[in-house]
Amino acid sequence: MNVTVIGLGLIGGSLLRALATRGHQVTGYDVSEATRQAAASAAGVENPGWRVADDIPAAIVDAEIVVLAVPLPALPEVMPALAGFTGLITDVTSVKGPVRDLLKGRRYVGGHPMAGKESSSFLASDPHLFDGCAWVLCLEPGETDLDDWLRLAALYTSLGARVVPATADEHDEAVARISHVPHLLAAALSNLLEDNPLAGALAAGSFRDGTRVAATRAELIAAMCGGNAAAVRRVLAAVLEDLDAYGRELTAPDPVQALTPLLRRPGELRRAWPAAPGVPEEVDPGNLLAWGRSGGWIVGVEPRLVGLRPVSGRNDS
Amino acid sequence: MNVTVIGLGLIGGSLLRALATRGHQVTGYDVSEATRQAAASAAGVENPGWRVADDIPAAIVDAEIVVLAVPLPALPEVMPALAGFTGLITDVTSVKGPVRDLLKGRRYVGGHPMAGKESSSFLASDPHLFDGCAWVLCLEPGETDLDDWLRLAALYTSLGARVVPATADEHDEAVARISHVPHLLAAALSNLLEDNPLAGALAAGSFRDGTRVAATRAELIAAMCGGNAAAVRRVLAAVLEDLDAYGRELTAPDPVQALTPLLRRPGELRRAWPAAPGVPEEVDPGNLLAWGRSGGWIVGVEPRLVGLRPVSGRNDS
Repeated sequence: MNVTVIGLGLIGGSLLRALATRGHQVTGYDVSEATRQAAASAAGVENPGWRVADDIPAAIVDAEIVVLAVPLPALPEVMPALAGFTGLITDVTSVKGPVRDLLKGRRYVGGHPMAGKESSSFLASDPHLFDGCAWVLCLEPGETDLDDWLRLAALYTSLGARVVPATADEHDEAVARISHVPHLLAAALSNLLEDNPLAGALAAGSFRDGTRVAATRAELIAAMCGGNAAAVRRVLAAVLEDLDAYGRELTAPDPVQALTPLLRRPGELRRAWPAAPGVPEEVDPGNLLAWGRSGGWIVGVEPRLVGLRPVSGRNDS
Repeated sequence: MNVTVIGLGLIGGSLLRALATRGHQVTGYDVSEATRQAAASAAGVENPGWRVADDIPAAIVDAEIVVLAVPLPALPEVMPALAGFTGLITDVTSVKGPVRDLLKGRRYVGGHPMAGKESSSFLASDPHLFDGCAWVLCLEPGETDLDDWLRLAALYTSLGARVVPATADEHDEAVARISHVPHLLAAALSNLLEDNPLAGALAAGSFRDGTRVAATRAELIAAMCGGNAAAVRRVLAAVLEDLDAYGRELTAPDPVQALTPLLRRPGELRRAWPAAPGVPEEVDPGNLLAWGRSGGWIVGVEPRLVGLRPVSGRNDS
C-alpha cells in the first residue's frame, strides 16, 4: 500500500518505520524541518526506507491512505491541505469524538494505538512499538465504510497490533476509565505528600504504584483529560460516588464490618483482569461493535476476519 | 537481650528469626498450637534457635521486652496475661492510636514495621524481612520513656530497619495518606471495569499500577481502613476535594488550560519522591520527633545517636 504519515513524533515515526519494514511504500512529513531531516537521514540507513516530503501536497500526491499523527490541537491546521484528497484518512489521537466531528463528511476511520506518548520525538520511534498493542479503530454505524475499516484493520494487524472495534463515544468512555481518570487519582494521591515528609519516608509499594503516572507532565495529563472532558467528568463522578460511600461506611459503629462488603466486588474485578485470551474465532463483519464491547479484538483480516475474545470468570456478553 | 514475641505470624515469626540470628535470647508464643509446633520445629534446624512456650506466663517469665505481634482485635485478649509484667512492651500493629489508648499507664512504646502483611503465617516468615524497612517507633511527649525508645531503636536498627520517630497520631495520619487511602482509590478505580469489557481490553500500565492493591482481600483493606477510620476519613475528604476541583475545571470553556496549573504541584511532589538519603548526622535525642517530621530516620544508636535525613528538593523542616 501507499501510505503517508503526517507528523513524525513517536507514534508517526514508529508507524513510518513499521510500515516500511513490511514493504509498504511510505512517505512522511513533519512541520518541523529538524524532524524531517532526522527522518530523511534515518531512511538512508535502513532498508527498505521511506520518502520524506517538504510539504503536505507533495507528501500525499500518491497516497491511498493518509495517517494524521499530529497532536489534537494541530489537526484543524492540517485539514485545509487535505481538501482535495479523496483517499482514506485515519488518525492516532487519544480522543476520538472531537476528531470524528472535525472530519464529518470525509472518508475517515478514527484510530488510536494504545502505545507510548504522542509528545515524544522521532528519535524515540521504534518499528516494534505496536507489537501486541491494542489499536482502537472506530466504526460509526451508518457512517464508517466497512471496507475502509477492514483495510486499516488488515494493515495494523500486519504490524502486530490487536485491533479493537468501537464507536468514538465508546472509545472515549473506555479511555476515561482506564487512563484519564487514573491520572487524576494519581495526582490527588501525590498531593498527600504536601507538608508531610514523614508520609514520604514511610511510603512504599502501594503509594509508589498508585501515584506513578502523576509524574507525567501536567500539560500532557491536562491535554488528555481536557480533550475528553465530558467522559472524564462522568467517570470521575462515578469514582467520587464510590469514595463517598467508603467514607460514609467509615462513620459506622463498626467501620470494618461496614466497609468489607463494598470492597469485595472491586477485588473480584481486579483479580479477573486482565482476562486470558480465548481461542481465535471467525468474526461476522456485521457484528464488529458487539465483539469489541465484549472485550474482543481482531488479530487478522485476510482471508477472513479473525478475532480473539478474552475468557474471563465472569458472565459478560 | 531477652525478648519474647507473642504472635508468630509473618511479622512475629520474622522477628523471632531475626533476633535469634543476632544472638538474642528469644522466646515465642502463639495462640495456635499448630503455629507453636511449626515454630518449635524450625528452632531445631536453625542455629542459634529460640524457645517456644506453651502459654503467655511461661513465655514472659524472663523477658526484658515483650513484642505483641498479634492482630489489633486480639490485643485486648492478650493484655490480662501481661498484668504482672513490669518490663518493656511494644507492638507491631498497623494503627497506633487505639493501641496507645489500650496500653495507657503501661511501660509501652508503640511500633509498626512497614513490611509485609500481619495476616500471613509463620511459614512465610523471613529473618531478612526488616532489611531497609521503615519501622515507626512512637514517642509521645511527656509519656514515652526516652531510654525505652532508644533501647528498641537500637534493637531494630541492628536488624537493618530504618527507625522513624513519630507520635501515634502522626503515624496514623501518615499511613492513611500513603497506604490506607491509596487502597480505597484502587478499589474505586477497579469498579470502572464493571459492565465494560472494552475498557478491560484497552487497559494497560496506568490502570494496572493504579489498581494493583485492590486485589488485596476485602477483609484486610477494611481492617486497615476501619481500624484507622478517623484519619482515613480526614485524608479521603482532602482527596475528594482535589478530585472535585479537577472535575470543576473540566467544565471550563478551555478545560486543558484550566486543569494544567492544578496538576503541576502533584507532579513536582511525585517526581521528588522518594527523596535521596542525605549523609548520616548525629541527632539530638530531645529532637527526635522533629527529625521524623522532616522525613528523617535513625540508622543506629550506639555509641551515639546517629541518624540519616533524606535530602529532598523541597524546603521542609
